[in-house]
Amino acid sequence: MMAKQVEQDQLYIGIDGGGTKCRATIYSIKNGVLGTGLGGPANPLHGFERTIESIMVSTQLALQDAGLRIEAVHNLYAGLGLAGVNLPALHDKIMRWDHPFKQMFLTTDLHTACIGAHEGGDGAVIITGTGSCGFAMVDGVSVNYGGHGFAQGDMGSGAWMGLEAVKAALLGIDKLGPETVLSETLKQHFNTTTAMGIAEQMAGKPSSSYAQLARFVLAAAEDKDQVALQIVESGAKYISNLAHRLMENNPPRLSMIGGLSEPLRKWLDPEIAKIVESPKQPPEMGAIFFAIQSVEQQSEKAV
Amino acid sequence: MMAKQVEQDQLYIGIDGGGTKCRATIYSIKNGVLGTGLGGPANPLHGFERTIESIMVSTQLALQDAGLRIEAVHNLYAGLGLAGVNLPALHDKIMRWDHPFKQMFLTTDLHTACIGAHEGGDGAVIITGTGSCGFAMVDGVSVNYGGHGFAQGDMGSGAWMGLEAVKAALLGIDKLGPETVLSETLKQHFNTTTAMGIAEQMAGKPSSSYAQLARFVLAAAEDKDQVALQIVESGAKYISNLAHRLMENNPPRLSMIGGLSEPLRKWLDPEIAKIVESPKQPPEMGAIFFAIQSVEQQSEKAV
Repeated sequence: MMAKQVEQDQLYIGIDGGGTKCRATIYSIKNGVLGTGLGGPANPLHGFERTIESIMVSTQLALQDAGLRIEAVHNLYAGLGLAGVNLPALHDKIMRWDHPFKQMFLTTDLHTACIGAHEGGDGAVIITGTGSCGFAMVDGVSVNYGGHGFAQGDMGSGAWMGLEAVKAALLGIDKLGPETVLSETLKQHFNTTTAMGIAEQMAGKPSSSYAQLARFVLAAAEDKDQVALQIVESGAKYISNLAHRLMENNPPRLSMIGGLSEPLRKWLDPEIAKIVESPKQPPEMGAIFFAIQSVEQQSEKAV
Repeated sequence: MMAKQVEQDQLYIGIDGGGTKCRATIYSIKNGVLGTGLGGPANPLHGFERTIESIMVSTQLALQDAGLRIEAVHNLYAGLGLAGVNLPALHDKIMRWDHPFKQMFLTTDLHTACIGAHEGGDGAVIITGTGSCGFAMVDGVSVNYGGHGFAQGDMGSGAWMGLEAVKAALLGIDKLGPETVLSETLKQHFNTTTAMGIAEQMAGKPSSSYAQLARFVLAAAEDKDQVALQIVESGAKYISNLAHRLMENNPPRLSMIGGLSEPLRKWLDPEIAKIVESPKQPPEMGAIFFAIQSVEQQSEKAV
């Protein structure tokens, strides 16, 4: 599958940036994965300097892990998948970075996740973890739906489930909604019996804090708690709709990625649950395939 | 109604702190309102120093307006209604402030709004502006419901309506929900046709930014826009439930206060709309009544 123009001993690095960590993998076409490294947060929407630092830390650790000298970084073709680089301004800012790689190819984290999931081929992915969104790449055309962020989007995600659970518990305590096992669980978790006691502890908290409550919602839904069932069913309905919307673009495969993809599966529209396939490779391998494809295209253009 | 112990020429100042401004009114039992002053934000939950500064600015302007010298501040009994002082720690912090008044009496902004609305008598209030909440004072016992803050509470408020409208518009643009006149209006307002264009402009924005969108929702609901109708009807249903919950405490009167109280009225449960009465006095007058009542109680105890 690899074009002849690509040198057979060329080394690549795939970098998958995320809100909590950054993963780097060094790859040789001849020998496969040589080493991996883990850095800190690398979401350029939440800090450019920090992102660059995390990319460099994960890169250096991956070089070490591969038994390579630091200078080898100049021989690496790098593929980067980062959030927010669909915005031209942010894309340009990162491309202007005086990076140490032989060449750098940049795309969104959704794109590299999708390339990884389908091992370089076309397909669609739904990501459900702290947030949620859908992405598909078919015949060189990409689409994406959702992923509009907490609290205005990301339905069916962990943060959304946690927020809905808090809203329901507050209504229940005020006797303006049902009190169920789920609200009891939250009161115990927050070690309070008052609405203000919960509200204060969650005020101004980021989406990740709400996402930590999703496990209570999922567990209560298993036990047929009416409030939890309503939350999980409506979240799963949104994810199913997102899947149907992606399938309108005729992707050959559909995968789900993220911490909620397994627990949500049983609640999905059976038609969707049936066609969801496991991702073939992780997003950092997607970033490597992206770099390889980009080098190929470049060579083809040059011929 | 005023106890004999209170000197007839005693001056009072009522201070109503809010998230955007602070209102002070100087009042004489013999001659009524003598002067008013307006200061900046005075919500101690959002900044203690700023709150103290705004209280002092509004006080000085009120003294000037009343034709009094700055030193007259030491003769004023002050009634303060501030958000968040139901929390003992915040109450104590403000009471430890080295204030310039003859004596300072502190309670929540909900309490002074309620006292004002019912001219010192028992009653209930619903506040619907940027946020929403309900409060009642009956026979010396207060209750409050809602008011848990954006985005986990405050249903039926302006911020809640704006958030629901943004959520619906984003779903509509993704073709995962209906597109109506309301979503068209929002696209025009944000000068974009993409979901990401809206999402980015609202990301991380405070509740006041969402509340500015409420007017579009209310206008669209008037024109029978299906999405807007659903938002306004469900917000009004919550406010009606809040009113019923307050009435369980048998308050002799119920008033609604805040920018959304008028526009929401026609959407309320008719049973509630029928019993809502106009507030008799503004919250800063409630703060004055609160100071007068507190001085009276003090005198009674001393007798």
